[in-house]
Amino acid sequence: MAGNADRQLTMAITAAGGPEVLRPRLEPMPQCGPQQVLIEVSAAGVNRHDVNQRRRGPDAHHSDIPGLEVAGRIVALGANVSRCKLGDNVCALIDGGGYASYAVADEALTLPVPAGMTMTEASALPEALFTTWHNFFNVARLQAGERVLIHGGTSGVGSVAIQLLSAFGHEVYATCGTDEKCAMARSLGARDAFNYRTDDFARRALDATGQRGVDVILDMAGAGHAGANIVALARRGRIVHLSPGGGAEMHFPLRALMQKEGVVTGSLLRPLPLGEKAVIAAALADKVWSRLGTQIRPVISCTLPLAQAAQAHQRLEAGDVAGKIVLLPQS
Amino acid sequence: MAGNADRQLTMAITAAGGPEVLRPRLEPMPQCGPQQVLIEVSAAGVNRHDVNQRRRGPDAHHSDIPGLEVAGRIVALGANVSRCKLGDNVCALIDGGGYASYAVADEALTLPVPAGMTMTEASALPEALFTTWHNFFNVARLQAGERVLIHGGTSGVGSVAIQLLSAFGHEVYATCGTDEKCAMARSLGARDAFNYRTDDFARRALDATGQRGVDVILDMAGAGHAGANIVALARRGRIVHLSPGGGAEMHFPLRALMQKEGVVTGSLLRPLPLGEKAVIAAALADKVWSRLGTQIRPVISCTLPLAQAAQAHQRLEAGDVAGKIVLLPQS
Repeated sequence: MAGNADRQLTMAITAAGGPEVLRPRLEPMPQCGPQQVLIEVSAAGVNRHDVNQRRRGPDAHHSDIPGLEVAGRIVALGANVSRCKLGDNVCALIDGGGYASYAVADEALTLPVPAGMTMTEASALPEALFTTWHNFFNVARLQAGERVLIHGGTSGVGSVAIQLLSAFGHEVYATCGTDEKCAMARSLGARDAFNYRTDDFARRALDATGQRGVDVILDMAGAGHAGANIVALARRGRIVHLSPGGGAEMHFPLRALMQKEGVVTGSLLRPLPLGEKAVIAAALADKVWSRLGTQIRPVISCTLPLAQAAQAHQRLEAGDVAGKIVLLPQS
Repeated sequence: MAGNADRQLTMAITAAGGPEVLRPRLEPMPQCGPQQVLIEVSAAGVNRHDVNQRRRGPDAHHSDIPGLEVAGRIVALGANVSRCKLGDNVCALIDGGGYASYAVADEALTLPVPAGMTMTEASALPEALFTTWHNFFNVARLQAGERVLIHGGTSGVGSVAIQLLSAFGHEVYATCGTDEKCAMARSLGARDAFNYRTDDFARRALDATGQRGVDVILDMAGAGHAGANIVALARRGRIVHLSPGGGAEMHFPLRALMQKEGVVTGSLLRPLPLGEKAVIAAALADKVWSRLGTQIRPVISCTLPLAQAAQAHQRLEAGDVAGKIVLLPQS
């Protein structure tokens, strides 16, 4: 599809429902606002967020086109773009619209495709890196020398978080749902990984840390691990939720949390103001980008043509995905 | 009762149960360990903690004699006491044993009876001041200019916290269970107080702060206000629990907390290591003591002879107490 066409192919959420509500739709070419760039999308990462958005269906506040991260070539520049140039290969965190041939990104949230990485790999970075950085350093205020436990160690976020925090010198533990995924989590840098279906991960985390516990826990299961998380927590430890999980209602034994002066907190990345996302992007460029391709590399589960977005959602919902599924609009 | 007697009168928890299990008991005179002092108790503060301890009954880890704060005269010194002198009038945070004629205190947790204050008033200070300081400044990390909401605004802790945080320049809101108590909370310095039985305190707190919400909420009701607390909370606000409340199980809508990057946390004062309590005492001596008697004065609900400790518990459990009940061993 040429960059000067006035319509482009997207995969859109046409109703609330299962993967089948994702349907091809011709949409007007997106237009750059000030300080935005137009990206010809080579690859678009698929996230759990997209699945949840699809289940809720179209709403007035978001694009019907899911997709929060893309990689590709810059083919147009909005007003007042200062750093990006036409032809630059970039990846970007975007506010929807990634399941498409072209997507608009805020310049402040674009980063160069790291040396030695494919577009597919680069498209799998933004959501995981922004999420990891924000939750560990801004929300949990992770300190040097602190130990972390990452649930979903082979998820898109988990697999990147293990590598990033290991590279930063933290002692990292992980949980996964199968022994095979635990082995992968260890290969990514986790000092140990526990199968939460067959193991008492809290006991294992305490044993691994001389009964001290872990300082920060990254959780995407909502209330699922709430009580065990507190058991695994060190004094003044923080449990950071990045998904409400299955049920939106949280519950845990309050006295146990108080005894440790523990913290239950969390964040939602997408609603963050652009200015805050830009600060995260700057921190990533400064502290993380030079490590990509060597110390940190995203795990790609599979790639699929954009038209098979529904199949991508099916696989993610089936739960046996390790790493990221990436859609390829140009294939 | 003379300081050289080898036995003293106490009120002890004789079984798990109602106020009637508090019974007079002759006990050996307590002995000072190193860096401890013996206090002839003029007044002993009664706290909700004592009621909870009585309900649980005697245990192997705590003195059967309740009472976490006293005021009186120092009548004996342990080894290596450096600052306190015989005859000093002090108040102290102690680890049980306050419902007695004599009590031992760690020197590091004793503070002088403030100028112009009675022993009764001084005995009502330690638990409230240590609790307020620890939860707002150590656990919640209250910052200059932040707004606070204090539940139980006329409780022992609440009435002192309102005064202390107002004196430090914070905008303070409170909730109480009656309109009369709300009026008292305002008279103590709260910018406004809301009757949580008849008012939507979260809506009122939002309206009072231009919809911004409050930065720190001090809660002693466990899950009772959990959902409404999140509504009232500012972005990155902290909800600090100092009692598990009626039920030990906490529950709240997780997504709402994540949306604000809010924090649910809390602490238990009594199990804190002595070293940490000593740091709090030093901070109080440095930053708060000179304000006592002028800007901050404890609210005394009533005094009772030590022998009527059961009646003190009855009144506290009936819930219509504003301020602190104080027991007088020497009357």
